[in-house]
Parts: sequence; structure tokens; C-alpha cells
Amino acid sequence: MRISELSRRGGVPVTTVKHYLREGLLPPGRPTSATQAEYGETHIRRLRLIRALIGVRGLSVGATREVLKAVSEHETDPHQVLGLVLGARPATTNHATAGKEDGGDRPEGARNATDATDAAGTTDADALLAEMGWEVSEHAPARHVVTETLETLRALGVDYDWRSLVPYAALAERTAALDLDQLADTTDPLERAERAVLLTVLLEPALLALRRLAQESESARRYGG
Amino acid sequence: MRISELSRRGGVPVTTVKHYLREGLLPPGRPTSATQAEYGETHIRRLRLIRALIGVRGLSVGATREVLKAVSEHETDPHQVLGLVLGARPATTNHATAGKEDGGDRPEGARNATDATDAAGTTDADALLAEMGWEVSEHAPARHVVTETLETLRALGVDYDWRSLVPYAALAERTAALDLDQLADTTDPLERAERAVLLTVLLEPALLALRRLAQESESARRYGG
Repeated sequence: MRISELSRRGGVPVTTVKHYLREGLLPPGRPTSATQAEYGETHIRRLRLIRALIGVRGLSVGATREVLKAVSEHETDPHQVLGLVLGARPATTNHATAGKEDGGDRPEGARNATDATDAAGTTDADALLAEMGWEVSEHAPARHVVTETLETLRALGVDYDWRSLVPYAALAERTAALDLDQLADTTDPLERAERAVLLTVLLEPALLALRRLAQESESARRYGG
Repeated sequence: MRISELSRRGGVPVTTVKHYLREGLLPPGRPTSATQAEYGETHIRRLRLIRALIGVRGLSVGATREVLKAVSEHETDPHQVLGLVLGARPATTNHATAGKEDGGDRPEGARNATDATDAAGTTDADALLAEMGWEVSEHAPARHVVTETLETLRALGVDYDWRSLVPYAALAERTAALDLDQLADTTDPLERAERAVLLTVLLEPALLALRRLAQESESARRYGG
């Protein structure tokens, strides 16, 4: 197909496709004349994954290039591929901590929380993961989010530790199983990686919204008249 | 107590306490001299709720004043109070949609999604809420987040509608029940309102982080070796 069709089916403007070609994110097409080239289905799958990594996941072009390189080296290992596309640090705000950065007037105690450890050097996140039996890499940024949240709540006077999160973690486990189920029917590694990015990142605001809606409904059920 | 102790126990600097007094968010203390006043326990509870609404929930001083006024009018109705403190629109970014605003390079199809309705004028959110049997106000901003997320996923080529969210909504319902359980042991309306804000808003990044950690663990379990 020509670049115009690649642009249309990949959902990315032609100028952006050309930019990705220049940056080496997309491999060149097969030249058909001095100014034209022919592109194939793998270009489309790759372009859609790039769109997800840059447009949805918020990665820089440089970080995306590295992720794509690593993905093609580990194509046959779904766990590695998912870790690569979901674990890479975004260039801009981390979605999971975005909510922490907007208040210009945050309470004193909530500032500069660091990962406190107990006498044995165990953070809240370590203890929670051990309790749940979850296998998670040492460097997962989400560990710090858990520990920092608990620090912040304690600094604000709420009596909370990792044990308070165990029932939430049990529900998160079931949510993650739903997430993974939805990747099971895709076998192409690039397609699966794209879907993992879209469903993980784009569902985040919806899952929080569902919690708010369910809270309102549950509050009406318990206290409404 | 003197203003210095109010500041310490409320977790807010003295200058900020004075600002809240001037703005009428806190009622004046009982004057003990030309320059000093005496404050009580209700000042502390109110100050902590103000701290939660402004510092954590992200409300403006004006919006906080209105919420506090409405809360004191409906103090005996927990459902009203929770709706007031959780439903008010923040002055800055809406946490639930914060993730949508950072990408300068979002995919074409994902821009300017509006709440599409079917022939009967029913949005995806309406259909989902009806299926779940949830009682939720017409104007809850979270409705739009659900509908917009589905629009965005469809625009990006993922075959998704409200039915796809039903299993997630069932888990959100159980999460909300946990949330409400944690308010049950507080009977003072101001304290309960403060705790609702802290647990709802501050747990958001932690719940997303738990999902990420659980995904990694579930991926290792299914595909790891």
C-alpha cells in the first residue's frame, strides 16, 4: 500500500508517518520509484503500536525507539513484551501519580513523602506484595506509588498501613485477570502489545470513574431515603 | 486552644489558618484579648475538612465555602454530605481525567470525543448504570468519563462497548463497598466527610498502581517461565 493508505489505516497523519520513518521508528517501505514506496501489514501493526506508545502511553520518540527494539528482540516472550510496553517510564507525567501534582496548596504533612522502611528495610509495598504472593520486579514504579500513598494518608492522620490495602489488592488481582483475558485472543506480538497499552492506560480514568459512580450508588443504598 | 495549637493539630500553617479565617471558611474563635482568640474541637474538625477539600480534592476557596455551607445544612444526612464533598467539581484538573491531558501527540481519533447516544438518546454510561442497577445523579461527571473512554477506545479500533465494562463495574462495586465500610466507624459528619475525601482521592493512584502490579504478576503467572 502507499503511504496515504498506511496513514489512514494506522490512524496517524501522513506528516507524522514521515516523521516516524525519518526517526527510524518505522522501517522504510520497498521503493517503487524515486519518491514512492510500498508498505505492508507489518507497517500498520507497528504504526499502531507506535501510536499507542507515544499518543496514549506518553513515551518520547527516543523511549519508543528503545521499546520497539527490545520488543522485536523478545517477540516470542509475551511476558517480556508486556513488561516492556507497560513498564517503560513515560516522558511526561506518570499517569498513576498525576493526581498528586495539581494542588498548589497541599497539606504540610503530605509533601516530600519518601519510602519509609521498617527495621528490616521492608517498605509497605514489599510487605503487601509478599502477602499477596505477587511476582513483581524490584524497580516497578507502582511500588513507590503504593508506599507513598500510605505515607501520605498517615501524615494526614489516617490510621492506614499495607494491611488496609489487602482487600483492595485482592480486587485489583481480579481486575488484572480481566485485563489479561482481553489480550488472550490476539497472538500477533505487536497487536497484543498495542492492545495492552490501550486497555491499561485508557481504562484507568474509566475504572476510577466506575468507583465514583459505585460509591454514589452504595452511599444511596446505605444512607439514602 | 490558641491559634498555634489549632495550626499544629489541624496540620496547616498559622498563616493559612488566618487566611481561612479571613475568607470565612473557619468561624472566628472566642476573643480573649484584642489580638487573641480561643478555638475549640469543632475548629479542628472543620480545619481538617478544609485541608482535605482544598489540598487533596483541589477545590478553590470559593467552592470550598459553598461545600461547607451545604454540608452544615445537611449535616444529619450522610448521603448528602458524601455527595457534596465528593461530587463538587475541583478548581484545577479532574483527577479522573488527568491522564487524558498530558499527551501532546494524541491519536487523531481520540480527540474531541463527545458523548454519543444511540437512537433512544442513551449513552454507554446510561446503559451500564441501568445494567448494574446503580442509582447515580444525572450530572455526575464520572458518567462522561465512562462514555468518553469507550468512544476513545472505539476510535482507536478496539471493539468495546458498555457490555465490556460490566465485569469491571462489578469489581468497582465491591471496591466502593470497601470504601464505604471505612467511613462507618466515624459518626461526626465533618470527620466522615474528611475521611471520605482522603480515602477516595488519595487511594486513586494506589488503586491504579495495584492494578499495574497485579498485571505484572498475572502476566508472569500466565506467560513467565
